[in-house]
Amino acid sequence: MAAVNNIEVYLDLLSQPCRAIHIFLNCNNIPHKVKTVAIRKGENRTPEFTKLNPMQKVPVMVDNNFVLTESDAILKYLATKYNVSGNWYPVHPDQRARVNEYTAWHHTNTRPHAAKVFMLEVLLPHMTGQPTDPQKLQRALADLNDTLEKLENMFLKRQPFLCGDDISLADLLAVCELMQPLGGGRDILKDRHKLLRWKSRVQSALGRSFDDAHTVLYKVQNRSRAKL
Amino acid sequence: MAAVNNIEVYLDLLSQPCRAIHIFLNCNNIPHKVKTVAIRKGENRTPEFTKLNPMQKVPVMVDNNFVLTESDAILKYLATKYNVSGNWYPVHPDQRARVNEYTAWHHTNTRPHAAKVFMLEVLLPHMTGQPTDPQKLQRALADLNDTLEKLENMFLKRQPFLCGDDISLADLLAVCELMQPLGGGRDILKDRHKLLRWKSRVQSALGRSFDDAHTVLYKVQNRSRAKL
Repeated sequence: MAAVNNIEVYLDLLSQPCRAIHIFLNCNNIPHKVKTVAIRKGENRTPEFTKLNPMQKVPVMVDNNFVLTESDAILKYLATKYNVSGNWYPVHPDQRARVNEYTAWHHTNTRPHAAKVFMLEVLLPHMTGQPTDPQKLQRALADLNDTLEKLENMFLKRQPFLCGDDISLADLLAVCELMQPLGGGRDILKDRHKLLRWKSRVQSALGRSFDDAHTVLYKVQNRSRAKL
Repeated sequence: MAAVNNIEVYLDLLSQPCRAIHIFLNCNNIPHKVKTVAIRKGENRTPEFTKLNPMQKVPVMVDNNFVLTESDAILKYLATKYNVSGNWYPVHPDQRARVNEYTAWHHTNTRPHAAKVFMLEVLLPHMTGQPTDPQKLQRALADLNDTLEKLENMFLKRQPFLCGDDISLADLLAVCELMQPLGGGRDILKDRHKLLRWKSRVQSALGRSFDDAHTVLYKVQNRSRAKL
């Protein structure tokens, strides 16, 4: 059903799950307003934002007074409630289960492992003025490598997208995480031919909404390059 | 719809998400067969099980040749496909979004924080013969305490169950995790009156399926008591 909406989303585009929501809303032409919450300026800790989300985290979606947190839940809500193409979050129980299977796995694999590399190479050095700890980075890269192996050899083993023949919420959440280490100048996919071809298919399906959401990350990447 | 089913579930009842599935199937009278996979005996690493789930993890569900992993996805699949009461995974978009919001949060809060305490107090000492590291335990208990605070003061602030007025998949997943430290003789809810009342409501709703699934954990708890 096409419902009348009045959607506001509170986002920081340097956050991977926030970019996923930004892309989803734009490439599906769902009318919405973006309110920027700059985490680096502590805007997620203001009394006003804390009232909206006591967890002090982005993203937050407000749809006609219905306040929802957690990107996973927000994307599934938007896909179910608004008139989007069925591939994003299929109605068929088996196909929907595949998307839920990936998104559950994502929380303890793709998300923390790619984010840790960005934290060690970009956020921590910026906050502390100290260089990256090489041993911690090595462990984080090993964990990330294990995740990339599983993405290629399990999820993408026999199909073009993570959950089947077409793009779904799983691919969207995954690609935004796998982009993040680029902020530190690290292209984690460069020798991963299967994932590179997948990424290219995902980008084609998302169109210009992909680069629009990643503008801030590309700026951070350029600053990292300038330092090297 | 009531579908004809031929469900097999591969479970180790010392695993929290496996117990959630066991309870869900029994208290909703969904016919199924349980195949026990004893992780402590390495039965999750046999060639046969690896063929079924290359991740070598439990739980796994097989429904007429459809193989599904991840407890979160399995529970949502069963609730959607079989004829269970609407409270478990509501069809209304806002109410369903609340369950998805909790289950997403669960993966990086309730689940790892309660599991860590059990790992430090029971699994690691058993595997290494070394006593629990008191500093690591202190940090794990602080993280768990933060999760318990949020469960009481955010999710249960104004409602009897985590996502509303009735029991849902969220409560089931949560209660199985919060039981786990009992295996080491630690009752993490004993001074948490709000969570204790919630647990009592959850147990009432689940009936005898709750204790049936926890028999193995109670045995581990008794062995821990005998040692003290």
